[in-house]
Amino acid sequence: MEVDEVVCLPRLHRVAVCGGTHGNELSGVYLVRELLKVEKGEEKEPLPALLVLSNPRAMQQCRRYIDTDLNRCFTHATLTGPVSDAAPYEMIRSRELNAKLGPKGSPEAVDLVCDLHNTTANMGLCLIAYSDCDWISLHIFKHLQRQMPDIPMRYIHFDVSNKESYSLDSVGKHGFAMEIGPQPHGVVRSNIYTAMKVGVQHMLDWVRFFNSGTIFEGGFVDVYTMINHIDYPRDSETHNITAAIHPQLQDRDFCLLHPEDPLFQTFSGETLRYKGNEPLYPFFINECAYYEKGIALSLARKRRVVIPAVRVQAEQEQQAHNEEEFTSEEEE
Amino acid sequence: MEVDEVVCLPRLHRVAVCGGTHGNELSGVYLVRELLKVEKGEEKEPLPALLVLSNPRAMQQCRRYIDTDLNRCFTHATLTGPVSDAAPYEMIRSRELNAKLGPKGSPEAVDLVCDLHNTTANMGLCLIAYSDCDWISLHIFKHLQRQMPDIPMRYIHFDVSNKESYSLDSVGKHGFAMEIGPQPHGVVRSNIYTAMKVGVQHMLDWVRFFNSGTIFEGGFVDVYTMINHIDYPRDSETHNITAAIHPQLQDRDFCLLHPEDPLFQTFSGETLRYKGNEPLYPFFINECAYYEKGIALSLARKRRVVIPAVRVQAEQEQQAHNEEEFTSEEEE
Repeated sequence: MEVDEVVCLPRLHRVAVCGGTHGNELSGVYLVRELLKVEKGEEKEPLPALLVLSNPRAMQQCRRYIDTDLNRCFTHATLTGPVSDAAPYEMIRSRELNAKLGPKGSPEAVDLVCDLHNTTANMGLCLIAYSDCDWISLHIFKHLQRQMPDIPMRYIHFDVSNKESYSLDSVGKHGFAMEIGPQPHGVVRSNIYTAMKVGVQHMLDWVRFFNSGTIFEGGFVDVYTMINHIDYPRDSETHNITAAIHPQLQDRDFCLLHPEDPLFQTFSGETLRYKGNEPLYPFFINECAYYEKGIALSLARKRRVVIPAVRVQAEQEQQAHNEEEFTSEEEE
Repeated sequence: MEVDEVVCLPRLHRVAVCGGTHGNELSGVYLVRELLKVEKGEEKEPLPALLVLSNPRAMQQCRRYIDTDLNRCFTHATLTGPVSDAAPYEMIRSRELNAKLGPKGSPEAVDLVCDLHNTTANMGLCLIAYSDCDWISLHIFKHLQRQMPDIPMRYIHFDVSNKESYSLDSVGKHGFAMEIGPQPHGVVRSNIYTAMKVGVQHMLDWVRFFNSGTIFEGGFVDVYTMINHIDYPRDSETHNITAAIHPQLQDRDFCLLHPEDPLFQTFSGETLRYKGNEPLYPFFINECAYYEKGIALSLARKRRVVIPAVRVQAEQEQQAHNEEEFTSEEEE
């Protein structure tokens, strides 16, 4: 690849690593606590990241949230709308976090947010992002894939506009959730914790390499774009679920689901089949926290995205870029 | 075995099957709901069991409990002590259940309580009881083992007096928890749900066979008697855990743990070893609900218990037995 095909991107000055956005997803909680301890220690060089425990009250009670799901509170509307003293705790907290890491969409926002999550689904390590053309996130993903060949790894794309994006990672200029499973909520499993720890280390390594001028070659990434969700069958009166994920589908995240494949097994023993028209990739199969959201599983289409080689902009390029951006904004 | 070696035991007139004693252990919740639906249906013969949803408020919120752990509220002291209007919800509820299924220790108590539970630990199907010489519970266990050869199955004995016994199943004349895992709390997995459903069916079958005069041959059962618990290493200031179950121990419930075997892996990566003097059988390894109880795992000693052949007493024997009991109680 010729040097002139390398995309030059702004330096990543400030990176945030967040845990405990959901207070019962314990790998992130214990990893950020551990990194804070390391940071306090004087032997090693300081960690090149801002460490955040996002929902301390939910963490204390080992619950996903206190009043409402914090990780749905970062839309433009929620962050800028009126808020009373009686607002849900997480509405208040999302503004604090937006002040600390954002403001979302502004030049002051941190350059990269990595928000740590766990799932009860058998998803391995996933980066979940709102863009399928954010070369920074995609290159970090490629780097993790290369460095951790034993961990099943996927890149999930939620096709939602920046304004409607709702999660903490949307506050940064770049951002993604690092989602690892299977791990029951309220439990920490060594293997999942370690995968997250190693994933975060490689992510920070990549940022350091990038900032110091390393050229990362282009290539491709398989991107899973979320298409829709499927809810459990429910009793029309009580709204209670009447079936569980079928045993042949359970734990088979990212294994292609074909029309007529078993989807649910009712509590009386009947098999219900997938009635979609096209084969799609299931994920978040039987995620604990999504029962209340009406999601038994999500479905994705897979597509290969070609990504260019990247390197950091030299300081003078960056300055020129900033000026240019300023000009073009004025011209709009 | 000669017929005169058969132990004759009173008929099991009333059997209770309870789910939702912990509101987020979903196999039992959905199984009892399903059995209630079957019972309502008119096609089949009525189920020979009293069906109970033990903690409806906790079930509604999908939490283990509202104020305090219901399954620790059935000691003699808690059931008979003073109770105010401001008492924890579960203290009130335990009295309601004791009135319905007990009173504990009285002749009016139901004959058998089977209380359904799930664990995040990889324990297969366990019956947990306070006695290692309750021939009814041990024969039911043997029957389940024979009928369900593909499910790993153990009998756990908590060596606690009847007065100090604290769980719902202690309210019946006979009783046990049927504990099945691994299943994250707040999630229902088809395979675990089905194992529980089949287990309950075989249990009720056994009761029917027994009541109709079947002689069950003697034999032996391996009984795991709980010896002690081990807590996580914790930070002396914050009391936060500083390590997770070691990856080599995780999911190895009932695999003998030897002195110096890996026990924990600290969040900084160090291995901590088992410092006990004798090899013991670990169980409830990394059970979600026990973090707050200070239990990372429990340890048991295994012992083979010989059980006699049993059959139901004939009605006249039972009457004679009752009169005798009455007399001997008077003579005490």
